[in-house]
Amino acid sequence: MSLLVVGSIALDNVETPFGKVIYSLGGSAIFTSMASKNFCKSSVVGIVGDDFPKEHFELLAENKINTQDLMVIPGKTFHWSGKYNDLNKAETLDTQLNVFANFNPQLCEDNKNCDYVFLGNIDPVLQMRVLKQMNTTKITACDTMNFWISGSRPKLLEVINNVDILFINEDELRMLVGIQNIFEAVQKAKEMGPKLIVVKRGEYGSFAYSDDFIFFAPVYPVRKVVDPTGAGDSFAGGFMGYLASVGNFEETTIKNAMIFGSVTASFNVESFSIDKLKKISMNDILARKEIMEKSIRF
Amino acid sequence: MSLLVVGSIALDNVETPFGKVIYSLGGSAIFTSMASKNFCKSSVVGIVGDDFPKEHFELLAENKINTQDLMVIPGKTFHWSGKYNDLNKAETLDTQLNVFANFNPQLCEDNKNCDYVFLGNIDPVLQMRVLKQMNTTKITACDTMNFWISGSRPKLLEVINNVDILFINEDELRMLVGIQNIFEAVQKAKEMGPKLIVVKRGEYGSFAYSDDFIFFAPVYPVRKVVDPTGAGDSFAGGFMGYLASVGNFEETTIKNAMIFGSVTASFNVESFSIDKLKKISMNDILARKEIMEKSIRF
Repeated sequence: MSLLVVGSIALDNVETPFGKVIYSLGGSAIFTSMASKNFCKSSVVGIVGDDFPKEHFELLAENKINTQDLMVIPGKTFHWSGKYNDLNKAETLDTQLNVFANFNPQLCEDNKNCDYVFLGNIDPVLQMRVLKQMNTTKITACDTMNFWISGSRPKLLEVINNVDILFINEDELRMLVGIQNIFEAVQKAKEMGPKLIVVKRGEYGSFAYSDDFIFFAPVYPVRKVVDPTGAGDSFAGGFMGYLASVGNFEETTIKNAMIFGSVTASFNVESFSIDKLKKISMNDILARKEIMEKSIRF
Repeated sequence: MSLLVVGSIALDNVETPFGKVIYSLGGSAIFTSMASKNFCKSSVVGIVGDDFPKEHFELLAENKINTQDLMVIPGKTFHWSGKYNDLNKAETLDTQLNVFANFNPQLCEDNKNCDYVFLGNIDPVLQMRVLKQMNTTKITACDTMNFWISGSRPKLLEVINNVDILFINEDELRMLVGIQNIFEAVQKAKEMGPKLIVVKRGEYGSFAYSDDFIFFAPVYPVRKVVDPTGAGDSFAGGFMGYLASVGNFEETTIKNAMIFGSVTASFNVESFSIDKLKKISMNDILARKEIMEKSIRF
């Protein structure tokens, strides 16, 4: 099965206690598609400027990531500049939308037939526009953030009501539903339409919540987090990639997807940009998955 | 097997968004012993003033908690007054040590022969004094807090080096070893002597760390946390009580103890003081344990 990934594509400046990178490849669509590459074929939907390095296109091609709907227009690529002091919270130093301000995803015929769709954290108007272009889908998912929760609520609620899976940070979940208790909050979000809510809790792991079950996935115990940028997106990439590789939405599949998401994110945070994601093999992933299974099995 | 529980015994004022209680039964020794009551016999070691209500002694007796080493001396019982605004962090309004300032645990002969020992969060000088009075023990454990980590470090390190299990909050663990990454920090604490480190992470659950394994236990998904006071102590009570009931220190036993600890703490936080702990049966505990198992099994 194939996965459509919609989101930002960025050239980021990132500084953490372990170093600094300049104009490095980033953005939700990049982290998600690169994280899914060991599981399934994916197509990335996004926009970049004519400054976007040729080597990045080559990297995507090498990883069999379809770029038919990766638009290139004159101008500069979306740029984010951030700094992590304690690795738990990014301080945004600068955001330049650049060509991303003109993003209006138009899918080619091939991409309209993707079975799985991940709508990264972008304007819900655009997320909805992509959903409407799909011919048929098996499973759709979206991510979002505080900016859209407060600023574009009605449209965001429409998206949430139209996807199967909502990926959301715990603080944003509380903001979305206005409830402090996380287990009460997730039930409220569930009532907004999705079949499954995946609550991301940073270094504390994540949990999946449906009508039938709740499942807690810890993080893989990484001893040196170099750069947390893209952790949530790479989690979603591993999760959605595995889901697409299996082709069903059963409880066991979802639980395994949670673990694969966690494993994939653990590789991502061990390097800047996608440096580690691009190197890992399925064997690397399976080795960590086995360790994770032991850490919750009894 | 029998469990010796050493710690504070208090009459607390607690205010949370769900209400307020005045001079209610509390203290680490109370939460821990009451949480262990469904698993094993325990003896509580502590001190109270002559204002300590007779009904509390009766409650302990009803729950087969041995009070031979619960000293009563003229004066007032230890009093803590605190307020929770967001249920995650207590604001201490008042602390009156009262008779607790004179606490100098002297064990009776019966208690010197307990197989399991839990040293609640008190002065490490006293924790060490109790340890030295034990004739033989199978498993010893201690808890501690920031006050002793900064103010009584050498003595605390001696205690830690002499117990099998260290229960510790994640922030206090970071403080103890001076390392931010939690998985690096726990390894450092492990090198201080204990066979097992149990890291408590509040609403995010806990994990156990030994030379052989790491095991993550989520929280039981409580939808209405009424009062988090004693959550850590009741976790330890369920954990140590189960350990004492089984009588070995194998990996499977420890993993089950983590789940029982989590379940016991989940009941505790659903009411003020020990109101819920005193009512629960083994069937109540097993019902939640089954739900918890499902939430991590796949």
